[in-house]
Amino acid sequence: MSSELLDVVGIGNAIVDVVTHADDSFLTRHDLAKGAMTLIDAERAEELYGLMGPGIEVSGGSAGNTMAGIASLGGRGGYIGKVRDDQLGEVFAHDLRSLGVEFTTPLAGSGAPTARCLILVTPDGQRTMNTYLGACTGLGPDDIEPGQIARARLTYMEGYLWDPPGAKEAFRKAATIAHEAGRQVSISLSDAFCVDRWRDEFRHLVEEQVDVLFANEDEVISLFQVDDFDAALQALRGRSLIAALTRSEQGSVIVRGEEVHVVDAAPIERLVDSTGAGDLYASGFLYGLTRDFDLNTCGRLGAAAAAEVIQHVGARPETPLDAIAAKIVG
Amino acid sequence: MSSELLDVVGIGNAIVDVVTHADDSFLTRHDLAKGAMTLIDAERAEELYGLMGPGIEVSGGSAGNTMAGIASLGGRGGYIGKVRDDQLGEVFAHDLRSLGVEFTTPLAGSGAPTARCLILVTPDGQRTMNTYLGACTGLGPDDIEPGQIARARLTYMEGYLWDPPGAKEAFRKAATIAHEAGRQVSISLSDAFCVDRWRDEFRHLVEEQVDVLFANEDEVISLFQVDDFDAALQALRGRSLIAALTRSEQGSVIVRGEEVHVVDAAPIERLVDSTGAGDLYASGFLYGLTRDFDLNTCGRLGAAAAAEVIQHVGARPETPLDAIAAKIVG
Repeated sequence: MSSELLDVVGIGNAIVDVVTHADDSFLTRHDLAKGAMTLIDAERAEELYGLMGPGIEVSGGSAGNTMAGIASLGGRGGYIGKVRDDQLGEVFAHDLRSLGVEFTTPLAGSGAPTARCLILVTPDGQRTMNTYLGACTGLGPDDIEPGQIARARLTYMEGYLWDPPGAKEAFRKAATIAHEAGRQVSISLSDAFCVDRWRDEFRHLVEEQVDVLFANEDEVISLFQVDDFDAALQALRGRSLIAALTRSEQGSVIVRGEEVHVVDAAPIERLVDSTGAGDLYASGFLYGLTRDFDLNTCGRLGAAAAAEVIQHVGARPETPLDAIAAKIVG
Repeated sequence: MSSELLDVVGIGNAIVDVVTHADDSFLTRHDLAKGAMTLIDAERAEELYGLMGPGIEVSGGSAGNTMAGIASLGGRGGYIGKVRDDQLGEVFAHDLRSLGVEFTTPLAGSGAPTARCLILVTPDGQRTMNTYLGACTGLGPDDIEPGQIARARLTYMEGYLWDPPGAKEAFRKAATIAHEAGRQVSISLSDAFCVDRWRDEFRHLVEEQVDVLFANEDEVISLFQVDDFDAALQALRGRSLIAALTRSEQGSVIVRGEEVHVVDAAPIERLVDSTGAGDLYASGFLYGLTRDFDLNTCGRLGAAAAAEVIQHVGARPETPLDAIAAKIVG
């Protein structure tokens, strides 16, 4: 077992993305909620895949993307998530490990196949995600290795973990271990519909267990059931946690206590595929925190990482992010 | 069984590509022959995959790419190739069928997994391919459905079929059926090393069985064991076959009898990944033949299809090719 210190360990639904282009009319015709993440069962996954055009397969999963980003920035990361011992599971494991991310969760030897997310990218660069959780439902507290959590300065978890039943127990175990070891806990709210499904639990988490919160505008509005972004911002002020709130092309707003920072989005040439924007923002921000940069710099690192990933298909960086970060932090 | 007429039926090694970026130093360090296709066994595939960075998985295979191109141009195609009934095999089948390509070859229920090609794309856009043939070695004459071959105006086969032992028998059976049905037979020489391995058989084919030949400069020089392109061109003059000879950025030269056409490459903004350039040239050219266009127009269609595919990662078109073709043929 390794004794190396980690910057961040991420826990998430381990998913391979199947990405294809589609028109808006395809979404309408097949009753798909544009821009959202919808959970689908095996039968619907097969049906929808049959309707889709040719795709590319690429490792994904929200926290997996974040950890790929942290590795690309030069950070030391670990990942906990459940795949099966099938071809897509091997792809998922390879892609993380080849970046130097510590990934030791045992692969499932039976049961549902590795999860996949059928992603339809419309001409406006928006992505509509349809997730078959498959092997992710096998993640549980036994997959949390206390030593690994204690070795990590931050433990980062995606809100999507609330969907499969065992994963939230894994989350709770990890959060307790992290805090007992004097480490910090971070969560992303993941998706407005996900917040809707688990609002009370997320509210409780934000009050009690989370040190660093990531949310986009829709998610934080849904969390506090308020009318607009400013009301959500006010709901977060005066707390001890750090909240990084992303607003697409309007940049991000960072809150800690009474401190508020407004950070611009990084310029892009062309929006190709917005998949992974929030995940990569989190990687830049968390990397900044582990390097003790100020919150504004953390936000700029997040913006730069997000800008890279939305200019190509797929939710993980194609260009090494350390070079991009060097332009910000020297 | 379908009775629909087909423009082209392609026969090839059914392969899923695993594409990653790599520096030239990676190729040198791991003894990889830049720009070539090297056959590797399961053990070497595992070793090399472990050394590679994160990749994307995308359906490939030379003739498979060509058929995807023909479908994208609006042509009606079929494909014959062997995958296993595993996840990558399902991806391969889905990607062809979703384009409307008729693909009915039975998936192998046991034996080696679906073939994969580990492709390293260097910063200059060149690709270095390492193929584990896997389930492709199961392709044999029984997979050739005579009715399908007879329904197709052209039967197109990749030279790579000479590598797995049973596939060349499938090729010979298909060529005989096609000619007996008054149809045409086309072949691509695929790779200069492949020509080296099978020169005598390829020479015999060109003399006896092939109506439309595709080759790049290195391949045709190797085929005739001559010193330069012009000598190879002279060796092909005066024959009854059509030869379409591709020369990368120097365009292509088309020969039939004493007729010779020189066609420019189509302009591109940026060379990203040259994988599939020859395959897509063949799709444009063959599509043109099935629409009875003159040879110069066929060459321009080939050039336009190749230009699309080398400007993004992956060997199959991302932009519908029918719109591109419409600019050439109205």
